[in-house]
Amino acid sequence: MRTNRQWLLGKRPKGPVAETHFRLAEAPAPGPQDGEALVQNLYLSTDPTQRGWMSRDTYLPVVRLLEVMRSFAVGRVVESKNPAFAPGELVSGLFGWQDYAIVKQHQQVLRVPQDVPIPQSMSALGVTGLTAYFGLLEIGQPKPGDTVVVSGAAGATGSVVGQIARLKGCRAIGIAGGKEKCEWLVREARFDAAIDYKAEDVGARLRELCPKGIDVYFDNVGGAILDHALACLAMHGRVVLCGAIATYNDDALVGPKNYLNLLLKRGRMEGFIILDYLARAGPALAQLAGWLKAGELVDRVDVLEGFENVPKALVRLFAGANQGKQLVKIAD
Amino acid sequence: MRTNRQWLLGKRPKGPVAETHFRLAEAPAPGPQDGEALVQNLYLSTDPTQRGWMSRDTYLPVVRLLEVMRSFAVGRVVESKNPAFAPGELVSGLFGWQDYAIVKQHQQVLRVPQDVPIPQSMSALGVTGLTAYFGLLEIGQPKPGDTVVVSGAAGATGSVVGQIARLKGCRAIGIAGGKEKCEWLVREARFDAAIDYKAEDVGARLRELCPKGIDVYFDNVGGAILDHALACLAMHGRVVLCGAIATYNDDALVGPKNYLNLLLKRGRMEGFIILDYLARAGPALAQLAGWLKAGELVDRVDVLEGFENVPKALVRLFAGANQGKQLVKIAD
Repeated sequence: MRTNRQWLLGKRPKGPVAETHFRLAEAPAPGPQDGEALVQNLYLSTDPTQRGWMSRDTYLPVVRLLEVMRSFAVGRVVESKNPAFAPGELVSGLFGWQDYAIVKQHQQVLRVPQDVPIPQSMSALGVTGLTAYFGLLEIGQPKPGDTVVVSGAAGATGSVVGQIARLKGCRAIGIAGGKEKCEWLVREARFDAAIDYKAEDVGARLRELCPKGIDVYFDNVGGAILDHALACLAMHGRVVLCGAIATYNDDALVGPKNYLNLLLKRGRMEGFIILDYLARAGPALAQLAGWLKAGELVDRVDVLEGFENVPKALVRLFAGANQGKQLVKIAD
Repeated sequence: MRTNRQWLLGKRPKGPVAETHFRLAEAPAPGPQDGEALVQNLYLSTDPTQRGWMSRDTYLPVVRLLEVMRSFAVGRVVESKNPAFAPGELVSGLFGWQDYAIVKQHQQVLRVPQDVPIPQSMSALGVTGLTAYFGLLEIGQPKPGDTVVVSGAAGATGSVVGQIARLKGCRAIGIAGGKEKCEWLVREARFDAAIDYKAEDVGARLRELCPKGIDVYFDNVGGAILDHALACLAMHGRVVLCGAIATYNDDALVGPKNYLNLLLKRGRMEGFIILDYLARAGPALAQLAGWLKAGELVDRVDVLEGFENVPKALVRLFAGANQGKQLVKIAD
């Protein structure tokens, strides 16, 4: 009998998410029924969007209290009563913060390529990389010579956004928190410039670095930085709404007070959800893999180890303590 | 010697615009130089965008203190030293709140058709109608069957937006202030429904009237109503930013706190400035004139008389006291 450790949603956060919002539990792992497979999770993902899932219906229903916390994960098929899944195979999906998950035919499950390290398959070569790819190229519509600014730039999505912008002939400017992250952006990820929002005047630096304005602003953070970017928008500028990690912990919603600059600058602000693009993942992942192999794209992954550290990893993300994609390895 | 009465910007408003922000002056009317024509203004326009011009640089530079207040107007050429302008001809442009204006070749001047009443040429068959036309069709991209909601619906732009939506096979829902305006919208302008924001719960009524959400929201007002509309957005909904009259009098800018619904609903919020579309005015005006002639479009104009009433007319607009396009007739 396999023991299934689980992190349940213990209570809904008011304000910042903390480890105390989760409750550890154990249950026997379920046996797969006909048409099902049992997956053992190897790596769990932490993502800013999980904060929304804990509090309210979003593009997915809210996680119920005492339900296993929803999460992306990569696991290995250990038992299968479905010919579509072979034991030993690696798959990814919304398997939750637990050791074992049941996969059904109808669930959204992606195959994980065998020739890619698992952490990378969850970062630049996974949903995170696809978020950067489709968000920037489809919604942002960058043209060569454009100035592209991305917030949360040292994060998993943001760092790929800026690098794709550079590969498409744009100037890439990243906004991140702290000297180390900003240095990494310029030196390793080869952004044209980086702004340290913890130490610098973001508005002044944007005006300085973007004298012709921002053509594409890819927003991962919301809040004051979104306002600074709107104030600096170029004519016909595009704002890609990917997330708003700076606001997810707040109870009171605050809107971008400079939104009317969209009117003055004939600008556009548009949101997207990566789940809509998964059917087109193949060619995008091939392109990302090509860049990575050629050394034109660097990926940074921050792996904690141990099932007990899973809630801590999510809290780290909101503190900005992670260096790139934050994962937790829970089994070999 | 002609006397030129002028309303100058006397001081910049803090908060609501009032008659006391303007100062009456008189000067001799200038004589046209070579290449110029002298225009006598017959009707002056009042527009919400003038509130912005009084306070800050927008898509046009701020009006300087003791400068003639900027305004759209229609006038008659009374003297011409430019073969392009014949005495007696009607023209429109940014001639300002004054009796006489000098028109130069390079200025943006539109001919006013002789077969259209002047007030109409400043309303549904003028820049106002074009604002509705291009804003709805180019930015809003309505499809037959879509639910289109417009705020400031009984105003000059809003009423045309809803009627074009209906003519394009959409459901048209207007938001306006007061029972009389709402009745006019449904009975005369043949909107499918109207919401009285002064008497009804806008959020609840939108949810009731738009069970599948709002496909296109055309915003003339900003503020709380924009937030209600964002909360009710359909998947892939479009928000057309035309103006924000509810906020122009406020010193503190407030952003739409529900903007992240653009993300959840894969929505788009986009602004435009009608000046960009004037080169394409011809076919659009012909279409609007055709609808008007066929009785499919009704136009409502609210004309005050007398130069002394010009500032009062602008204040009326912000109080929502106007019934359709607010003009002031200052000469025959």
